[in-house]
Amino acid sequence: MLTLYYTRGSCALASLLCLEFAQAQYRVERVDFSKQQQRSAEYLQVNPRARVPALVTDQGTLTETPAILLYIAQTHRAAGLAPFDDPYALGKLNEFNSYLCATVHVAHAHGSRAYRWADDEAAQKAMRAKVTQNMTDCFDMIERHMLQGPWVLGDSLSACDPYLFTIAGWLERDGVDIARFPKVAAHFARLAADERTRRVLERYPA
Amino acid sequence: MLTLYYTRGSCALASLLCLEFAQAQYRVERVDFSKQQQRSAEYLQVNPRARVPALVTDQGTLTETPAILLYIAQTHRAAGLAPFDDPYALGKLNEFNSYLCATVHVAHAHGSRAYRWADDEAAQKAMRAKVTQNMTDCFDMIERHMLQGPWVLGDSLSACDPYLFTIAGWLERDGVDIARFPKVAAHFARLAADERTRRVLERYPA
Repeated sequence: MLTLYYTRGSCALASLLCLEFAQAQYRVERVDFSKQQQRSAEYLQVNPRARVPALVTDQGTLTETPAILLYIAQTHRAAGLAPFDDPYALGKLNEFNSYLCATVHVAHAHGSRAYRWADDEAAQKAMRAKVTQNMTDCFDMIERHMLQGPWVLGDSLSACDPYLFTIAGWLERDGVDIARFPKVAAHFARLAADERTRRVLERYPA
Repeated sequence: MLTLYYTRGSCALASLLCLEFAQAQYRVERVDFSKQQQRSAEYLQVNPRARVPALVTDQGTLTETPAILLYIAQTHRAAGLAPFDDPYALGKLNEFNSYLCATVHVAHAHGSRAYRWADDEAAQKAMRAKVTQNMTDCFDMIERHMLQGPWVLGDSLSACDPYLFTIAGWLERDGVDIARFPKVAAHFARLAADERTRRVLERYPA
């Protein structure tokens, strides 16, 4: 049995949706950031980096969204969430998820977590002021060059789609109108209407 | 034949070393950032994100270091650079490389590329001032929790090792003494002494 450590409003939603799309057997442990539970001694045993998601498996714990998504896909091959037999296609999946984690999530994080990268308040304010522009630039890149449609990698839903859905869900709070990006907006609406997504979000509100 | 687009001093060194460790057939195209070649119309055709590395394959182009490293490993299985038949072990590889790209490389980038995240000079200066501390924290995490030794994943060299070597090579310019981290320092010295690394660095100075 897999256990996912999850926090509302975080990128852990991508892993939660991927578990659901994979028809995995799993349970969820909530980590309440408002109570600083991610810094508790108990949680630091799970993930010393004090972040979610973390996926506890029979062999040990995995962290970092791209790693968790690929692990779920590989251990639930019947769901067809990653093209393991085609190195180039798998490379495109990894390219997309790496871009989300290292550039897009990072651009977003300069809004609420600017303190990670500078101590003084004026600098943090200057970082927050640039989030809308940076997220716009990132999604313009995704719209024009990366999202093949209807799913990220083309005809089949993959481990990229719940991750894009999760981060696209942050655009409104980042001051970006998703309607500027028609393919992204259609992708978001399609996944939002999916009954598996609705079931997950009803049980674990984002 | 593979073509790697490479820039001195960049994270593309990880992919270059991985190609060498895989005994791949490849050629290198230099992208000179001092001449802004990454923003040339020609290079934007290769990578619209204006960054290196980019690996041109017979099927198309891959970007993002974790994706390129895994592709090289998967297309050169005899080199044993990734445990494709063990989803959990592959997950640990991906976890490590995701941490490097999304947290450690990002921490470093706030030194020379602070303009990405704030427009005003004072804010950029505040970001630069925090790089030494953030890189210290990242390598403390790697030293204590992630680098199994002697190689990142334990007994075998993998696609994680050239990436760690590359980023550890930035510590000095980030104001961090690698000697603070004995396992990382030993790992760096071991790879620096490897004749394949020496051959690469002689031909393509970092």
